[in-house]
Amino acid sequence: MYTLLHQDAHCHARRGLIQTAHGTVQLPAFMPVGTLGTVKGIELSLLRQTGAEMILGNTYHLSLRPGEDVVRELGGLHGFCGWQGPILTDSGGFQIFSLAKIMRLDEDGAIFRSHIDGSKIELPPERSVKIQETLGSDIAMVLDHVVALPNERKVIEDAMLRTVRWAERCQKAADHPYQKQFAIVQGGLDPELRRRCAEMLAELDFPGYAIGGLSVGETPAEMYEALDFTLPYMPPEKPRYLMGVGRPEDVLNGILRGVDMFDCVMPTRNGRNAQAFTDAGPLRLRNKKHERDDRPLEDGCPCPACQRSRGYLRHLFMAEEMLGPILLTIHNLTYYQRLVARSRQAIEADRFVGFYAERMTGWNESE
Amino acid sequence: MYTLLHQDAHCHARRGLIQTAHGTVQLPAFMPVGTLGTVKGIELSLLRQTGAEMILGNTYHLSLRPGEDVVRELGGLHGFCGWQGPILTDSGGFQIFSLAKIMRLDEDGAIFRSHIDGSKIELPPERSVKIQETLGSDIAMVLDHVVALPNERKVIEDAMLRTVRWAERCQKAADHPYQKQFAIVQGGLDPELRRRCAEMLAELDFPGYAIGGLSVGETPAEMYEALDFTLPYMPPEKPRYLMGVGRPEDVLNGILRGVDMFDCVMPTRNGRNAQAFTDAGPLRLRNKKHERDDRPLEDGCPCPACQRSRGYLRHLFMAEEMLGPILLTIHNLTYYQRLVARSRQAIEADRFVGFYAERMTGWNESE
Repeated sequence: MYTLLHQDAHCHARRGLIQTAHGTVQLPAFMPVGTLGTVKGIELSLLRQTGAEMILGNTYHLSLRPGEDVVRELGGLHGFCGWQGPILTDSGGFQIFSLAKIMRLDEDGAIFRSHIDGSKIELPPERSVKIQETLGSDIAMVLDHVVALPNERKVIEDAMLRTVRWAERCQKAADHPYQKQFAIVQGGLDPELRRRCAEMLAELDFPGYAIGGLSVGETPAEMYEALDFTLPYMPPEKPRYLMGVGRPEDVLNGILRGVDMFDCVMPTRNGRNAQAFTDAGPLRLRNKKHERDDRPLEDGCPCPACQRSRGYLRHLFMAEEMLGPILLTIHNLTYYQRLVARSRQAIEADRFVGFYAERMTGWNESE
Repeated sequence: MYTLLHQDAHCHARRGLIQTAHGTVQLPAFMPVGTLGTVKGIELSLLRQTGAEMILGNTYHLSLRPGEDVVRELGGLHGFCGWQGPILTDSGGFQIFSLAKIMRLDEDGAIFRSHIDGSKIELPPERSVKIQETLGSDIAMVLDHVVALPNERKVIEDAMLRTVRWAERCQKAADHPYQKQFAIVQGGLDPELRRRCAEMLAELDFPGYAIGGLSVGETPAEMYEALDFTLPYMPPEKPRYLMGVGRPEDVLNGILRGVDMFDCVMPTRNGRNAQAFTDAGPLRLRNKKHERDDRPLEDGCPCPACQRSRGYLRHLFMAEEMLGPILLTIHNLTYYQRLVARSRQAIEADRFVGFYAERMTGWNESE
């Protein structure tokens, strides 16, 4: 499913694409998060205009609400939400970390107490596969065991080995006409655990590989280091997806090291909270200094938020108008899409290192 | 500014247009309400797609937040909110009724205690004019004295006479290159008071006239009766605007009697609360019966909400996703715009009475 189009001559950044049953995705790509069958706060026609080619859904959340059978009856995840492009579904593995307080886990799988009504949800790897097949996503993630960082080496190693065993069970359980499975490399911040995990999973020959278990408590420097010692052991002929990451600088640091795919709630969540991403660093729109500022968030940005002034956007947040979160969601998603689009161009011209340096400097100029 | 294009042969319904500095509005027209410089929950490109040609802003609310000087510095109301079509601003008169608890009034004008920070806002007619001129709307409303119904005849008569005196003061205070002022007929449910008010205001030769002080506690039948005995005294060569009305059936009853313009928060407010308007009556989207319903809200509706299933829309509301209110806002505004568009076609073909009867029957079929 993966095609390498060009390798930057001066770093590990690579320009590629993946082909799915619902279309092609240009890489490096940023995927907006649509946990419950909607990218929060943005209508699909406007989401397409941001440049997004692939979106995420979440197995755990959709199986609770509205339930995968309802989604199937209403046209599968594509028909249900109306997004006819590629969709990737997470497996529920991240909820093993984020909902640890309402979860217990053994070798068979995870068992959650629903955060909605307290009912019991059993999630062995085979059920995660089945739910994702019912949803009909283009790319399904294997169920992995995500643990918080820092943590004891023994805990991280156990979770890593379990992740490999579960990946094998997911692979065996898979039976879908077009859905592709991505395996997930775990192993915390330990080079040896990451290498072993990547090598064992490579043996299983999945169509794609993710790096999981990052952005769970470690520093950015630790995360970049983990990428440095993990990526060399991931098959170069397969797409590489860094899960749940991150800030714009994290995305560029991932691309620099050879990552192809990213997802994060940051552009949407921070947008709802009045933070706008720009090339000069983030803007806090509630700040009084924007009150009479007639400039757009970002010169040259084609998004509808940038057809208005910073003063207008501030007004919307101060008056608690829905359009504030809507417009900043659109702007931030557009910002991330433009960032990866510019990265793709830079890689094609073998100048990603320069682009990276320029952007890192710009962001530190701040407001 | 008003052109009568066609008078229906069998009722008072009329097909016309008004020309403003920011474009033409086909009549009868429904104007979405954008109190604070945004029609709640809908991005402008999608608002245009609903068919809306003219929107409302509110003098009282905008003068408090962000303040008319900020609006002026940020391009006037058109530049501020990005809507380049016609805009009508209400005068603050309705807040004399709706915010009566934080308002006192004498012959000079109204004085409010800000509902935001308790500060004092003096609103004599001249200041309402000045604020609206600073905002730069295409149509400004005179400051009127709106009272609740039912009420004592003396109270209603005093408010009506004051409304006429204030209209004259507004007219004298007006000084703007393109803004047109509409006067407002008051007089409660009393035929003689309404007639006297309409006649006195007609003497003053405003470019347009509104019927105010309805939808403030009376029954629909009483409101229709008030239209019946008021409209004959309003100049036929001027546009007629029924303020703050109403349900789809109220809009058709207004058109039937010769009203040209309407505004109401109902399509947007009810949309945010999961109610969708359809030709078969309103749907409550939170109802369990919609869970697996794969039909659109309304067959043949071109809006993005109707590209999804009722089941998906219900899911969005149950999961408290912003896209639920967004999509139902779009659908309801589209519904109202299609209703007035179909009314305009029916009038042109002298068949508005039939269209009216057909729609009234359809709505009563209900869910």
